[in-house]
Amino acid sequence: MTTPAEFYETHRELLDKAIEAAGARDYWSAYPESPSKSIYGETAAADGEQAFKALLGKDFPVEVPGATTHVATERSPYGIELGIRYPKGEPGELIAAARAALPGWRAVGPHGRAGIAAEILRRINARIFEMAHAVQHTSGQAFVMAFQAGGAHAQDRALEAIAVALAESTRIPGTTTWSKPQRGGDPLRLEKTSTVVGRGVSLMIGCNTFPTWNGYPGLFASLVTGNPVIVKPHPGAVLPLAITVQIAREVLAEAGQDPNVVTLAVEEPGESIAATLATHRDVRIVDFTGSSEFGNWLEANARQAVVYTEKAGLNTVIVDSTDDYKAMLRNLAFSLSLYSGQMCTTPQNLLVPAGGIETDAGHRSPDEFAADLGAAVGKLLGDPKRAAGTLGAIVNDGVLARLAEAGSLPSVVHASTEVADEQFPGATIRTPLIARLDAADEKAYTREWFGPISFVITTESTEHSLRLFTETVRDHGALTASVYSTSDEVLAAAREAALDAGVHLSQNLLGGVFVNQTAAFSDLHGTAANPAATASLSDSAFVTGRFFTLQSRHHLSEQSHA
Amino acid sequence: MTTPAEFYETHRELLDKAIEAAGARDYWSAYPESPSKSIYGETAAADGEQAFKALLGKDFPVEVPGATTHVATERSPYGIELGIRYPKGEPGELIAAARAALPGWRAVGPHGRAGIAAEILRRINARIFEMAHAVQHTSGQAFVMAFQAGGAHAQDRALEAIAVALAESTRIPGTTTWSKPQRGGDPLRLEKTSTVVGRGVSLMIGCNTFPTWNGYPGLFASLVTGNPVIVKPHPGAVLPLAITVQIAREVLAEAGQDPNVVTLAVEEPGESIAATLATHRDVRIVDFTGSSEFGNWLEANARQAVVYTEKAGLNTVIVDSTDDYKAMLRNLAFSLSLYSGQMCTTPQNLLVPAGGIETDAGHRSPDEFAADLGAAVGKLLGDPKRAAGTLGAIVNDGVLARLAEAGSLPSVVHASTEVADEQFPGATIRTPLIARLDAADEKAYTREWFGPISFVITTESTEHSLRLFTETVRDHGALTASVYSTSDEVLAAAREAALDAGVHLSQNLLGGVFVNQTAAFSDLHGTAANPAATASLSDSAFVTGRFFTLQSRHHLSEQSHA
Repeated sequence: MTTPAEFYETHRELLDKAIEAAGARDYWSAYPESPSKSIYGETAAADGEQAFKALLGKDFPVEVPGATTHVATERSPYGIELGIRYPKGEPGELIAAARAALPGWRAVGPHGRAGIAAEILRRINARIFEMAHAVQHTSGQAFVMAFQAGGAHAQDRALEAIAVALAESTRIPGTTTWSKPQRGGDPLRLEKTSTVVGRGVSLMIGCNTFPTWNGYPGLFASLVTGNPVIVKPHPGAVLPLAITVQIAREVLAEAGQDPNVVTLAVEEPGESIAATLATHRDVRIVDFTGSSEFGNWLEANARQAVVYTEKAGLNTVIVDSTDDYKAMLRNLAFSLSLYSGQMCTTPQNLLVPAGGIETDAGHRSPDEFAADLGAAVGKLLGDPKRAAGTLGAIVNDGVLARLAEAGSLPSVVHASTEVADEQFPGATIRTPLIARLDAADEKAYTREWFGPISFVITTESTEHSLRLFTETVRDHGALTASVYSTSDEVLAAAREAALDAGVHLSQNLLGGVFVNQTAAFSDLHGTAANPAATASLSDSAFVTGRFFTLQSRHHLSEQSHA
Repeated sequence: MTTPAEFYETHRELLDKAIEAAGARDYWSAYPESPSKSIYGETAAADGEQAFKALLGKDFPVEVPGATTHVATERSPYGIELGIRYPKGEPGELIAAARAALPGWRAVGPHGRAGIAAEILRRINARIFEMAHAVQHTSGQAFVMAFQAGGAHAQDRALEAIAVALAESTRIPGTTTWSKPQRGGDPLRLEKTSTVVGRGVSLMIGCNTFPTWNGYPGLFASLVTGNPVIVKPHPGAVLPLAITVQIAREVLAEAGQDPNVVTLAVEEPGESIAATLATHRDVRIVDFTGSSEFGNWLEANARQAVVYTEKAGLNTVIVDSTDDYKAMLRNLAFSLSLYSGQMCTTPQNLLVPAGGIETDAGHRSPDEFAADLGAAVGKLLGDPKRAAGTLGAIVNDGVLARLAEAGSLPSVVHASTEVADEQFPGATIRTPLIARLDAADEKAYTREWFGPISFVITTESTEHSLRLFTETVRDHGALTASVYSTSDEVLAAAREAALDAGVHLSQNLLGGVFVNQTAAFSDLHGTAANPAATASLSDSAFVTGRFFTLQSRHHLSEQSHA
């Protein structure tokens, strides 16, 4: 056994650094994003692949309270057979087990809980290659992206949440002495104790595309602030979170804690256990990433809980002018292509003034810009092998159906095509579709088309673009926005418009940074200031609603006066 | 004109100290609680009284957007004529004015806003004697209590909220540089800007008993985090908040800001403008202190806003044993008597085991304890002049009606009586009523009897008392709890029960500290962990939901590399 305090001591330096980095918000990362042998070891890649393959077609080894049956619901976007069966418990039993684990978890205190959380992360990182395969074959992310976004970056986001949660839950000291001077007498003296108490049972509802990256912040923030967590993965992406739960329970048991502090909740498709769990009176925190439809439903119906959602919106690019047209097109083409646009951060609406844009390569009309962007996508994805590595695979049939629907739009300027994968002949891979629209076509572009579908939209002017941007994002939300302009006035107006719209803004991205990527410990993800999300990963507001500080006080006796 | 930055510089030392104190949570106070000449000056008392008297029977001088009529709704619990008329605006105009003030207020930034807030407080403190009269003649608090709770302590609570809001809204630096190393190339470098953006128009709904103490935290927390605030006082206690709004608008104008950042919203009784304002789509923050009924209604209906409520509950005392029976009785008697029990923190339910309690004065049965407590109240209030100074006056007819209802309970052991006041013959003053109940009488004691009404309730045992305590507080809420015991086991069990119930606990208070008093910068008020409140004054959670942090980022050019 290792006590929680010992785990804290083991990871104290890392946690201190993480708290410092989350405050400084310059560049910092704890988990290397390169799948290199020099970092992870000679055999790590082969071992991880073998560990992943050993899981296929079997009962997944994790204990679930009250489970009597197993379910297998996953399908690899790369076409391989998975057939992993997960034990399935009833919602009532999962909640009862979590409630039973609550008092013990409260007694551990913030530091011990952060120590255990950091140890869980250490072991997740040690299995990063296995995790990358798990993420690849559930989300459809290409392997290197799965390693980075689903592995190292998800771990960084988790550590960031742990750091913010530990910092916020320890701002009020555990014990203080209060001594109030009295005129002509001894001071009034009290000893006061503050205890962090979790809000209650926490539910994390995972998504299909980024099960770890989007799921970890809520999971770890709830854990550190004293809440047992029921992890409910998307039926299409169970494995990455099942591995996570397995590791968490292993560490909890080693620390002498009830492993039911973290449990796995799986279901057959259509059982809607997320809704059942989220509206249960004893579930007090809900974290959700996924569709606006279900996210809005949760916000309206899970009234007994605080609900942190990350949904969808109209990610917008305002194109005004540029002094590096080629670099702009390359940057945008990559943003549209990465993981086939299946990121909640992929740009959908590109606003271009009818009068065209000024560039270092001359004036471009909206049609010319759309054609150039299509060509840039074509060039980026010209080599099938490189294309497959950028695009990944299509996560599910919903995306394919939207792609077919978009294909019937009147003005497609870059059609989506199939790409073959050498390694996985059964993979479903598609290039991005780009269509032309007008500002008047708001019925089409004020809807979110999740997947590799984007629109070049003609506006009256850049001023009109900015107004359209603010209005549509205010009404429908967005997780990202970017602007291209050589004019300081336009950039200033865009910053003000982004503040009004309530969205983060990237300006003139031309190099190796893309609007759809955010870095833990520096960029916040989501703002909570527009309808696309009620949470921001990971600011103070993301953690402070998860716990209460309860005080007790008593007179200080004279003997402890010294 | 004094710029916001200059106000910040003026108050920087105070704000720094306040932030430090809010973190350390030992004894600290910025505003002296003693109405002494040596502190506030030779003529302060007389000047303040004169200033108060000059307001009576007149139109109160404050500008309200769109006001065309005046209303006068206050009645002094001390029986003097007030007749102050306040300008009345329409809800729609108040909200429009607040919205118009929003972008300018956002642009000031957290430090400038905190500087302005601190200057507002400085001027409120300079008018503390006038404010004390205003609080006395609206809430019914006796003058010294009005000076302290409505003056100095309210100002301390305000400064605490300012400090927590400033600290939380500046955790993420305004500008950072992000530099990510690249293998075999220059690092990726971005400059990132973070801007604090308020959630939107904020509404503060004041209460009749503590218009400033309970109202200031939400008002100042919202201001510092970038939100214009509409101040809607209770119709019975307008003046203390009208003075506050007047001062706020004066400072805002001097700082070159739109004074409509703070506006006053008054009404005729029964107009329900609080409900109208609170459910308006553009009102995004609601702070409320008052009845559970309206608080629960706001939580259920003001869905477009975050709602911070402080309502009512069953404040409980667990009496197990004591080694200083006299001091315990004296302490409890004062807690029941202070401001006629019209504090949201006054104990209502005193749980005593049927087998009685062990004390240094011998064994006492529940009936004997109840009789002794009644006698202690009688002794405390024996001298009418001192009684009036402790009791204050009855705030409104609702309290009198409850007192009459309680008087008809079968087992009153200490009846409520009238007390005359020398200075104000028209004052309505009453002593506390104490009745005996049994644990089975839950219909009577699980209801809140706001006012000078308390119950000595027989339980089977202290263990039963603790169970009853946890169950009733979990279901009905509480703002305070206390325990008297000489047993370490009982004290430990009480602390655990308080954590389960979600309430702060005072242990064995015998001297000059009372369960119904909390000190800013040390004690939190409310926990949000039970139904009595969704807020805790003032922890991080009280401020972090009031703003968002929005980022923008761009490549760092080589010339700024240095």
